[in-house]
Amino acid sequence: MFTENQIFEQTFVVSDEIYRGFGNLFKDFNPLHTNNDFARKKGFKGAVMYGNILNGFLSYFIGECLPTKDVIIHSQEIHFKNAVYLGNTLHFKATVAGVFESVNVVEFKYEFRNEEQKIAAKGKISIGIL
Amino acid sequence: MFTENQIFEQTFVVSDEIYRGFGNLFKDFNPLHTNNDFARKKGFKGAVMYGNILNGFLSYFIGECLPTKDVIIHSQEIHFKNAVYLGNTLHFKATVAGVFESVNVVEFKYEFRNEEQKIAAKGKISIGIL
Repeated sequence: MFTENQIFEQTFVVSDEIYRGFGNLFKDFNPLHTNNDFARKKGFKGAVMYGNILNGFLSYFIGECLPTKDVIIHSQEIHFKNAVYLGNTLHFKATVAGVFESVNVVEFKYEFRNEEQKIAAKGKISIGIL
Repeated sequence: MFTENQIFEQTFVVSDEIYRGFGNLFKDFNPLHTNNDFARKKGFKGAVMYGNILNGFLSYFIGECLPTKDVIIHSQEIHFKNAVYLGNTLHFKATVAGVFESVNVVEFKYEFRNEEQKIAAKGKISIGIL
């Protein structure tokens, strides 16, 4: 079902609904994410999106976009490289980095790129096949 | 402001609002998270909560619970150890694992424990002080 170097791609938009929904759900109103002036003073173009929105996209990717629904996440790693802003469209690409059939584990490496082809974030996910 | 071995603690409840809110926000309706019978057939007590809800709690912890708001997450790592169920109360404990003043970086290791004191998840977070 999974083979090494197999690629999965997806497009995600950091919409106003997702941005506000995430902040309200987790009660994170840190000024970097909610105050454009504060974020600009810190050297950003405006309010920086919550990095963990990208982890929410990973949840969707693993839960809904694989050839099987019989999966569970074992571990995740994410490195934030470039700030994401409201309305950004992110191109997500995951590559199967390892298939361990004896233990029903699949490892992916992934990256999110912004419209300028810069890496917004990258990391690894390990899942179990149930 | 941060010193090695400094401890931060927090309590999080995986409420119905957070569970349903997360699923609807990210459109992850994988049966492991939404179908009790499916989850039971896979050996769980019932629908398993989205692991990335815990990453949302980390967003709140970093954004709202530290002695400064001038922070940004550089990277995160999470390992899921025991399934979390609807209504579980999680005890979160983060320990400052490293302070790197020359580059304004602070590293935490953290764990979420359930009511039975079992580790639900553990990992590391690295943040920058802005």
